[in-house]
Amino acid sequence: MGRYDLALIGFGGVNRALAALICERGKRLSAELGLALRVVAITDLRAGSLVDTEGIDLTPLLAVEPGELTFAGMTGGSADPRNEWVIREVPADIVVEATFTDPTEGEPALSHVRWALESGKHVCTTNKGPVAFGGRALRQLAAERDVSFEFEGAVLSGTPVLRTAQRMLGGLEIAGVQGIMNGTSNYILGRLEAGIDLATAIAEAQELGYAEADPTADLEGHDVQLKLMILANEVLGADLRREDVFREGLSNITQQDVQNAMSKGLRWKLVGSAMRQADGSVDARVAPLALPAHHPLAGISGPVNAVAFHTDLLGVVTVSGPGAGRTETAYALLSDIIAIHRRRPADGNTALRRVPQETHHG
Amino acid sequence: MGRYDLALIGFGGVNRALAALICERGKRLSAELGLALRVVAITDLRAGSLVDTEGIDLTPLLAVEPGELTFAGMTGGSADPRNEWVIREVPADIVVEATFTDPTEGEPALSHVRWALESGKHVCTTNKGPVAFGGRALRQLAAERDVSFEFEGAVLSGTPVLRTAQRMLGGLEIAGVQGIMNGTSNYILGRLEAGIDLATAIAEAQELGYAEADPTADLEGHDVQLKLMILANEVLGADLRREDVFREGLSNITQQDVQNAMSKGLRWKLVGSAMRQADGSVDARVAPLALPAHHPLAGISGPVNAVAFHTDLLGVVTVSGPGAGRTETAYALLSDIIAIHRRRPADGNTALRRVPQETHHG
Repeated sequence: MGRYDLALIGFGGVNRALAALICERGKRLSAELGLALRVVAITDLRAGSLVDTEGIDLTPLLAVEPGELTFAGMTGGSADPRNEWVIREVPADIVVEATFTDPTEGEPALSHVRWALESGKHVCTTNKGPVAFGGRALRQLAAERDVSFEFEGAVLSGTPVLRTAQRMLGGLEIAGVQGIMNGTSNYILGRLEAGIDLATAIAEAQELGYAEADPTADLEGHDVQLKLMILANEVLGADLRREDVFREGLSNITQQDVQNAMSKGLRWKLVGSAMRQADGSVDARVAPLALPAHHPLAGISGPVNAVAFHTDLLGVVTVSGPGAGRTETAYALLSDIIAIHRRRPADGNTALRRVPQETHHG
Repeated sequence: MGRYDLALIGFGGVNRALAALICERGKRLSAELGLALRVVAITDLRAGSLVDTEGIDLTPLLAVEPGELTFAGMTGGSADPRNEWVIREVPADIVVEATFTDPTEGEPALSHVRWALESGKHVCTTNKGPVAFGGRALRQLAAERDVSFEFEGAVLSGTPVLRTAQRMLGGLEIAGVQGIMNGTSNYILGRLEAGIDLATAIAEAQELGYAEADPTADLEGHDVQLKLMILANEVLGADLRREDVFREGLSNITQQDVQNAMSKGLRWKLVGSAMRQADGSVDARVAPLALPAHHPLAGISGPVNAVAFHTDLLGVVTVSGPGAGRTETAYALLSDIIAIHRRRPADGNTALRRVPQETHHG
């Protein structure tokens, strides 16, 4: 049985959903996977911090509405998140980072991850920021401290994409990745195909909870840009900065464009592509593309997301599933914890894949 | 470094392709995965058998046309395949079974696998027969002897489907699987959509090498039936026999049906579905279905195959990729060998997943 004490950094939708999973399927995790999970610390910008090294009772916390929760006054509680102190000093095995993504430099999540690794704790996160802006350095730090740095949820929530590249495609050369990695924009493109105009489609998506009040990050490809950086750097071994990734959003696509394309059997999709070039470099770009019907991403509809891996021996292998959602993203954290549990010393914390360097010969 | 001596049972297209991979990417396998592979025995119905415990030089064997290869007269060679003796007595670490699939009882491959496990050797196979007809008993035997029994290639060649269920979806409840698992029939349905009649489409598929001279097994769903049995038994924990899996092929589908459906936005596909019922049993059926455009399998075109897992926390997660091909299937064997290399004692050889029994509560 693997027993792990967790520190949850951020207690918004995702970490609350993880806490609920731990409550609801404790027995299953123990019977099926040999996992016993206990939360010993929680920090949150609004609620403050709560520490109990004997294990926090999560049920009463989950019964309180998120906006009304405050840890001040509880035993071991404080109105102050005390992030650095909690991350460095509370004796947790795994730090679970699920604060907001900062799209320009990844802070403060990047510091949270660094503090945790520096203090010899495993980290799992759903936060794109630290992985996109600090992935290489954080991986190296994790390797030095002999702990795991896992971040499946940073790309397609719980849909296994990074771990598929790492664990399922060993021995293959991956020449490129292409993905539909934003459910909001994909849903809206589908509505344009159905004859709805852009403004109405956006309002609809907002009502359904697919789009935020300001849909720019989704529609203009900023969200996909970070995810593509992560895929390019982690799967193809690139070292791209944000400015290296070309980005074009949906602004220039009209309902007419989408419907004209449909009549020719083409489907407009917002696609992130990272492809290795002849000189070994990686070209990465986010842009709307009109895909022919047989393209592996052409059939990915609505809020579903997908990533296609272009491999030498298998051709294209595609994984599709949810790209967002609280429980779906919380499952990504659970899958990270399972990976830590199954970790072998030999797995190390080096790049997911090596950049191919040798020529193939016998 | 993990060093493994292999015995190849069957030296047709798939094991020849595996031998070529071992020759071509030995350095890569060693650098990236810490794998050193050596072939110490080969048996083949036509070529006989060849044993060299110091390692067989594969290059000259691969230079001979398959039909012309004979091991008689070589040092350690014989015109007799000597399967049982080779499998039981030659000191190999892994027996790689890639003989033909017998669709009624799985022999002689089932015996090959049993002999190997009985003598304490790991087994990997691409052969549907032993897994479909003896999966449960062979898994149990492997567990008793503390060795691995791996068979990723029995379902979708090298596309990771069984291992995705086993390793990527831990902690989830899988309520059902649905797949397009035969490239020939899927290619032919696509041609009917394009306005080609059935006879012409079959002739075309035969010319392209997608369909065999007798296309019955592909078109009437016999091939999918075995694959679905494997998925139902291994992923859903069922214990189905072939007669438990309803089967209907494409005989009753006309070009007109397919085109009428298309005009309504529906696409006919030959779908294998295994779904857990309210009473815990698994209903499994192979039949043509007219899928709506948003169905995760509707966009799977031509020779591409796919399996969709219906899960509780993630909804539908789909993996698509090649379903056949010599190199693609040989890669499945390589992925099995990698899994054996990464094997931990805790991984065991029990069912891929447990049948859920407990109620979820906190």
